[in-house]
Amino acid sequence: MTMQLTSFIEVKKDSDFPIQNLPFGVFSESPNGTRRVGVALGEWVVDLSVLEENGLLELENGRDFFNQSTLNKFIDSGKANWSKVRAQLQHLLAKDTATLRDHAELRNKTFYKQSAVTMHMPVHVPGYTDFYSSKEHATNVGCMFRDPKNALLANWSELPVGYNGRASSVVVSGTDIVRPSGQIKVPDQERPIFSACRKLDFELETGFIVGKSTQLGEPVAIEDAWDHIFGMVLFNDWSARDIQQWEYVPLGPFNAKTFASSISPWIVTLEALAPFKTNSPIQEPKPLAYLREDHTHNSYDINLSVELKPENQQQADVISQTNFKYMYWSMAQQLTHHTIAGCNLQVGDLMGSGTISGPTPDSYGSLLEITWNTTKPLQLSNGEQRSFMQDGDTLIMKGYCEKDGLRIGFGEVSGKILPAVAFNFAD
Amino acid sequence: MTMQLTSFIEVKKDSDFPIQNLPFGVFSESPNGTRRVGVALGEWVVDLSVLEENGLLELENGRDFFNQSTLNKFIDSGKANWSKVRAQLQHLLAKDTATLRDHAELRNKTFYKQSAVTMHMPVHVPGYTDFYSSKEHATNVGCMFRDPKNALLANWSELPVGYNGRASSVVVSGTDIVRPSGQIKVPDQERPIFSACRKLDFELETGFIVGKSTQLGEPVAIEDAWDHIFGMVLFNDWSARDIQQWEYVPLGPFNAKTFASSISPWIVTLEALAPFKTNSPIQEPKPLAYLREDHTHNSYDINLSVELKPENQQQADVISQTNFKYMYWSMAQQLTHHTIAGCNLQVGDLMGSGTISGPTPDSYGSLLEITWNTTKPLQLSNGEQRSFMQDGDTLIMKGYCEKDGLRIGFGEVSGKILPAVAFNFAD
Repeated sequence: MTMQLTSFIEVKKDSDFPIQNLPFGVFSESPNGTRRVGVALGEWVVDLSVLEENGLLELENGRDFFNQSTLNKFIDSGKANWSKVRAQLQHLLAKDTATLRDHAELRNKTFYKQSAVTMHMPVHVPGYTDFYSSKEHATNVGCMFRDPKNALLANWSELPVGYNGRASSVVVSGTDIVRPSGQIKVPDQERPIFSACRKLDFELETGFIVGKSTQLGEPVAIEDAWDHIFGMVLFNDWSARDIQQWEYVPLGPFNAKTFASSISPWIVTLEALAPFKTNSPIQEPKPLAYLREDHTHNSYDINLSVELKPENQQQADVISQTNFKYMYWSMAQQLTHHTIAGCNLQVGDLMGSGTISGPTPDSYGSLLEITWNTTKPLQLSNGEQRSFMQDGDTLIMKGYCEKDGLRIGFGEVSGKILPAVAFNFAD
Repeated sequence: MTMQLTSFIEVKKDSDFPIQNLPFGVFSESPNGTRRVGVALGEWVVDLSVLEENGLLELENGRDFFNQSTLNKFIDSGKANWSKVRAQLQHLLAKDTATLRDHAELRNKTFYKQSAVTMHMPVHVPGYTDFYSSKEHATNVGCMFRDPKNALLANWSELPVGYNGRASSVVVSGTDIVRPSGQIKVPDQERPIFSACRKLDFELETGFIVGKSTQLGEPVAIEDAWDHIFGMVLFNDWSARDIQQWEYVPLGPFNAKTFASSISPWIVTLEALAPFKTNSPIQEPKPLAYLREDHTHNSYDINLSVELKPENQQQADVISQTNFKYMYWSMAQQLTHHTIAGCNLQVGDLMGSGTISGPTPDSYGSLLEITWNTTKPLQLSNGEQRSFMQDGDTLIMKGYCEKDGLRIGFGEVSGKILPAVAFNFAD
């Protein structure tokens, strides 16, 4: 048994952020303060701009990576530099390294309590794409809205179905979500009505952040795709089911999704996740050659949970527990498929996994599935029921990997529902 | 009869760019030279960065608007500043104004022949949305792929159907278009095949550029929407029909569109287009209150044409002629609908009209419609036929308004088709 690397900073056993993780994020001391790049370590944020300024980081492909309001510049410096920085940080923060440990003044400037800082969007997201890669989720939706006997459409098993999302409304965890309004079609009326959404839902997803820009007309081969991924986040693809059902034919979801999508503030790198590689499901039919890869070690064993906290309730209720490993299409397959027709990617692009549902009702990734479109309302511990989100509810997603005493976590992505805008149309 | 404003620069009668137009664009002297903002006047580009540097422009809400590689900063300065700059330019460039006219050195630094410069993307496009607002186009597509008796889906007449496009692959006129490859489903095979697109099409559209950023959760009222639009461009929403038909259910077009979308380099302002306001079609049913506006003067009379030039042919053939005024949903309705659920817009966002088809086959806005999905091939003047685009073909769209001797044009958006990437899968 090898001695595990530890830090001179105390990290609790159940922390998401041991020295083996070091996820990247953007923080400021006050809500409107100067933003810079940090990594999480236990209960602390390590300010990388201070370490860079003090000459403690050897960097490749440029400089001034961390006194920045987003991670894009650092990500664009390339995979070799990500690894190099990670290795240097693990050395600098290790128990046996005196540089920071024994330099009180520098330590004071470098470490901030996570509870005392404001986290921001970790990247500027130039493009956001959402996939639909959980077989269980696609099957559930197909059963409810199409034909239980032919729940999966013919293309689903041949390619990672995806669509363009709206990048401007991707927000960081903690941002309040205003209930959207729009056209909904109720069964007893011939025409749609204008209304606040009555079926506001979450979608439990992860997302990955693109680490390398590509050119128009230059597809990424499947064997290179993993090198184009910087890291992963938790992702809540808020969805207005009633707006979606009316608007989505024939060109896909629009206002039902564009009002907000929330990401967790810490990007966990693929290097930190490496010990948790696992197999993805065997794909049958075998994908076309451009999508074909070894299904062993092309997924990650990430435990995911969803909690709902009504406004008047102290504790949140866990309403779903699932795992990323159920995903049918891998992140590499998603990325390659995205570029195969020639589309260019940009550093910071966000690619959502699609709702991650497991095989059983307690592992479904949306209220639509959990309550089977309101037919099986959810019982909360405060005695209330939920079919969809209510105003004042806070939805929290968490994720972590755990193996051989090592825990690598994502922290959380949360959002609270605020009442709809009050409209006053003279009609 | 009022004397029309004229410039000391000679502008030919059939020019798209009289002093009444002054569309904004971004140019450089050499392909990789420094980009700056200019306006078009006759055969010339007027370098606004030179006029600003020489103190000839009084500006609001900032400075250094024109020594920039995109128009975003200028657009963000607000509608009052756009008008002010336009008025000052019309004065500076007028026949009777000596400032530039009689200052040879300054003139030499300010004017560049359009034929000698490189035009670039006029704006950074943070978000691109495509609508589907031509009733004739939606009806044609519905007839071909669904049911001729119920060609329009129920939601079409109630809201401007739209979807998120891919902003990263919006390119400026003149950019070559690599034929996309991907999964297509041929009738005689059970599984899809990987192939170069066999049904490569254009879509004749216009686009508008968003002039004002808005906040998440703050819808734009229909009566304010026009103030949020900076100007219009010609837009070719290249489409791979065979890829689209296989991939688009249930979440909409993806790789069939994301390989490239082309815009014209000059943004024509709504002020320049004002003399050409016209009525849009009467909407029946009357839209819900949030989308309701006076249908008189909420459209523009813009003549649009499409030309196809095979590689071996000197002259292009005109293959379609139509008009923007046929559009059912107005740009204000599109913008308001986009924000009604809470989505935020950003300066520079591009919103495509959707394919603009007129009522007759010679006014259809795509090859899919013109050739009725290959059943009525197009006869070219060189004796060849086309069902869809061939490698080497150049597709050119043009647009102009004309009334009482005044012509305000858009120039053109063109693109040439290059052969698909050669793939070599070991299969």
